[in-house]
Amino acid sequence: MRQHLLEMLMNNEGEFVSGQQISDKLNCSRTAIWKHIEELRKEGYVIEAVPRKGYRIQSAPDRVTAAEINARLKTEVLGKTIVYEESVKSTQEIAQRLSQSGANEGTLVVADEQTGGRGRLGRQWQSPKGTGVWMSLILRPDIPLQKAPQLTLLAAVGITKAISKVTGLRPEIKWPNDILVNGKKAVGILTELQAESDRVHAVIIGPGINVNVGRDDFNDELKDIATSLKIESGKEIKRADLISAILKEMEELYHDYLNNGFALVKLLWESYANSIGRRIRVRTLNQQIEGIAKGITDDGILLLEDDEGNIHPIYSADIEIPGT
Amino acid sequence: MRQHLLEMLMNNEGEFVSGQQISDKLNCSRTAIWKHIEELRKEGYVIEAVPRKGYRIQSAPDRVTAAEINARLKTEVLGKTIVYEESVKSTQEIAQRLSQSGANEGTLVVADEQTGGRGRLGRQWQSPKGTGVWMSLILRPDIPLQKAPQLTLLAAVGITKAISKVTGLRPEIKWPNDILVNGKKAVGILTELQAESDRVHAVIIGPGINVNVGRDDFNDELKDIATSLKIESGKEIKRADLISAILKEMEELYHDYLNNGFALVKLLWESYANSIGRRIRVRTLNQQIEGIAKGITDDGILLLEDDEGNIHPIYSADIEIPGT
Repeated sequence: MRQHLLEMLMNNEGEFVSGQQISDKLNCSRTAIWKHIEELRKEGYVIEAVPRKGYRIQSAPDRVTAAEINARLKTEVLGKTIVYEESVKSTQEIAQRLSQSGANEGTLVVADEQTGGRGRLGRQWQSPKGTGVWMSLILRPDIPLQKAPQLTLLAAVGITKAISKVTGLRPEIKWPNDILVNGKKAVGILTELQAESDRVHAVIIGPGINVNVGRDDFNDELKDIATSLKIESGKEIKRADLISAILKEMEELYHDYLNNGFALVKLLWESYANSIGRRIRVRTLNQQIEGIAKGITDDGILLLEDDEGNIHPIYSADIEIPGT
Repeated sequence: MRQHLLEMLMNNEGEFVSGQQISDKLNCSRTAIWKHIEELRKEGYVIEAVPRKGYRIQSAPDRVTAAEINARLKTEVLGKTIVYEESVKSTQEIAQRLSQSGANEGTLVVADEQTGGRGRLGRQWQSPKGTGVWMSLILRPDIPLQKAPQLTLLAAVGITKAISKVTGLRPEIKWPNDILVNGKKAVGILTELQAESDRVHAVIIGPGINVNVGRDDFNDELKDIATSLKIESGKEIKRADLISAILKEMEELYHDYLNNGFALVKLLWESYANSIGRRIRVRTLNQQIEGIAKGITDDGILLLEDDEGNIHPIYSADIEIPGT
């Protein structure tokens, strides 16, 4: 009930909604409405109440609850089921479990805080309370295993586009799945897979986005290499706006991907990538190579041309751009 | 203690082991030994006891307990941890859970019966009590995701070689992961994956092998297409012998694979495959194509040449050989 009330007010942002309208639509008494309005105010919503005009939302707190995201959602599938938790160890772990017990495609797990957030290759990911987008999205594409890494690239493109639209910033993608703003990391994406050898059961896409993290909130190790959207844009961003924009961009790309294949994502990815055509240093578990990043293959593998002109397919590595 | 006693007797099959030897090695009394011998007899072991000579094992029941497999194990890594259950829903499910909580590479889950055995593509797999090898093996190779299907082919080759050695039969592999004996299916392999988009956490290989299933034990649907090693070879096979042989063959192939890549497995796979160079019919979710199976790629993808000379990469499908 409170969620529906909130959605009505949000969908009419700037306009008054009369008590009568609300009462008719939600089938409840004016007194009940008043009580819910009071509750919303306690949660941080600033709501104007004017006799004979009704209610108008003036500002909403920066929350990532299902109600807040739902009120902004413009998608058909992605985010249609939202599981919100205030504090979890890792949204990825929850999504893994939900996926194994058959959760629908598009199910989204969001948390205000992660106490044991994970990044790529078993690394930690700092996820302090109230300042970032810590989420995991379940997709169930009917694709062969070999093509699954394409969805990491799709996610990177979708998030880059959404950040660009919501903040005006111009993020770049660093292969395979970091998003940088002004050369520093603002987003990491952990993509995990549940699969048979010839069928993907689920791809679980887990971006961690530093949204309103302050410069002093990063520890010494991260200070020089990490940033947030607030630091770079100079303004606070409503996380629910960003999440809704990400789901919208990803849904459009995903729809095109399922119908027409990887071509569009590949094109967009290369246009956002900071490495293509540039000299990079690649560090894998066993070796270090320098050369020119030539592009990515249809399977999402990075192609590196070394100084002898040999092409190396790079499946998994950390890359650096020397001199930056 | 009983397991060690059993291993001593098994390792000296055909020879007497004196009570004194056992007592010294296992550091226990002659009376304790006698009690354990009695227990083993109750489990179905036939053990000869001759005064002043000692104990000799004459025949062992067809069991797949950790002790029975351990006593025959000739591997370094595969099967070094064995989880045996009399009856489970699915060994694959147990292995998935163990893998997620960090089980070592080589961990093997075996059951005497599965009540909800699963095959490829969500299909059921009949796993009646005491007649088959229902097992799941956890591998943790450091390979990119795209190469994971190679391990299904590796498993198929290892199992084919082991069946051949233990039974004298000449099985054939039907792409991607069925093993046929005299044209009927005796083995299916479900391979599942836990992975990031650029790192494999675990490959869980789950063969289901019809070993001592009788002809009348198959239901009407399976009767014409399925068979067992006993039906085809005319003799009962000790399942623990087969499991031990499979682990041995797979370990050798896996070791070579990690050191030298896919070449040997590919060569052997093609030598055992029933389809290469032959006309086949391929049914995928969306289409049906006929043509000549040309071989497999380095990623384990089947290449089909249609009548117009076009090459189709087949990632996931069911194949038939028309006229067989």
